[in-house]
Amino acid sequence: GGDVKAGRAKASACAACHGIDGISKLPEAPNLAGQTEEYLVKALNDFRTGERKNEMMSMMAKTLSDADVANLAAYYHSLGKP
Amino acid sequence: GGDVKAGRAKASACAACHGIDGISKLPEAPNLAGQTEEYLVKALNDFRTGERKNEMMSMMAKTLSDADVANLAAYYHSLGKP
Repeated sequence: GGDVKAGRAKASACAACHGIDGISKLPEAPNLAGQTEEYLVKALNDFRTGERKNEMMSMMAKTLSDADVANLAAYYHSLGKP
Repeated sequence: GGDVKAGRAKASACAACHGIDGISKLPEAPNLAGQTEEYLVKALNDFRTGERKNEMMSMMAKTLSDADVANLAAYYHSLGKP
């Protein structure tokens, strides 16, 4: 599992769309709070590899390391279901 | 927007993984409760067209009509954030 505190720091890049609390700020962006780490890691990795495509996310995900992905997943999972 | 009641009926096919309450039953499946209709419609349509791929969802989504997609999105959105 990733590091929640490191994930929170990294999540500043995600917050404009997904919220720092994991609640979406935009109709096209999903809530992330309380999703499983497995789902979140797969989603980010699918954007990184191009298996899943989205104009914004394909760009953002390419900036992430494996550790970033694990940490972000740990952070958004830790928020629990809102 | 779709019809919540029709969506609830259709959601029996989704419930084993996503819960009839929109809370995931499996680590690989996301919570759906309270996601925006826009996000849910796009996700289902991306699985229908093959733009987004997942062994289970690619199969399930192909069984859905445009009305089913709208109704399911209305239903899972209506559950609110858990």
